[in-house]
Amino acid sequence: MEDVEELSVTRLHAGRIVTLDVKEVRLPGGAVTRLEIIHHPGAAAVVPLHEDGSVTLVVQYRHAAGGYLYEIPAGLLEEGETPEACARRELTEEAGLHAGDLVPLTAYHTTPGFSDEVIHLFVAGGLTDGTQALEEDEVIEVTRMPLEDALERIRAGAITDGKTIIALLMTAERLREET
Amino acid sequence: MEDVEELSVTRLHAGRIVTLDVKEVRLPGGAVTRLEIIHHPGAAAVVPLHEDGSVTLVVQYRHAAGGYLYEIPAGLLEEGETPEACARRELTEEAGLHAGDLVPLTAYHTTPGFSDEVIHLFVAGGLTDGTQALEEDEVIEVTRMPLEDALERIRAGAITDGKTIIALLMTAERLREET
Repeated sequence: MEDVEELSVTRLHAGRIVTLDVKEVRLPGGAVTRLEIIHHPGAAAVVPLHEDGSVTLVVQYRHAAGGYLYEIPAGLLEEGETPEACARRELTEEAGLHAGDLVPLTAYHTTPGFSDEVIHLFVAGGLTDGTQALEEDEVIEVTRMPLEDALERIRAGAITDGKTIIALLMTAERLREET
Repeated sequence: MEDVEELSVTRLHAGRIVTLDVKEVRLPGGAVTRLEIIHHPGAAAVVPLHEDGSVTLVVQYRHAAGGYLYEIPAGLLEEGETPEACARRELTEEAGLHAGDLVPLTAYHTTPGFSDEVIHLFVAGGLTDGTQALEEDEVIEVTRMPLEDALERIRAGAITDGKTIIALLMTAERLREET
């Protein structure tokens, strides 16, 4: 398929996490349209999978979502940081765990209609205890449950965070294939 | 857990799809932080599941993601529109299909760290042919493949759209439970 021509870019906001541009582009076929595009540094997230088949989740306050959500440990990529290093760092900072092995699941677009955000997903095994180190603006409680209970919470609509749903479903798929 | 107090809201952009606010909030524990919050009207997306076990996907140009992505039919909720009606409308407009039955899979937060966007996911069966009706700024090709091929593309990192990954994995899980 054809390429798209970018005609103009206007930066409306350069923020702490997100930068908002409005771009005028000529689409394949010739139509000209204005697109709102949120630039995002990208993130990494990790399923802490214990040897007994349980997973550690964090319950985190998310103002945009209007409450507390179950999530896997995750965070923004820092400048120059690899997704793997970010996943290991967030696993320790948020959940107080060190990863032995770290296996990539996928990297996905959260909202390709208006954002360039990519989240890199991993599953971590060989977990050992570390020291949790929350940032001042993180409101987090740590919980642990059997993976099957977490999957049931997805089906029941009690786990609603996108990265967490994808990573837990892909972890379950990997475990089914191994057995 | 405690509530969060909103201290101030500054609207930076009110746009076609996204509205950007910066909010100052007092978190449980007392820390005051500035949050960038993207308001989004919400969306619905639908897996068109044919009787032979294949699914219809659309290949759509996404400027923010830098190229063409495999996606399930989806679109923004129009004012006053239910998620079910939106899913049926987008299924016809983007894929040229009418849904007989429409079963909810879940509703999830795409990016709760900075946006209130919720996408309602469905799987549609009893499909019959309708008439595709694209908007001027939609660049879409329709394709059909066995669900198992689509799942393999997720594992291979060739399907990277979040809503599409969640909806296809949850559809596969439902089919496994039925058999």
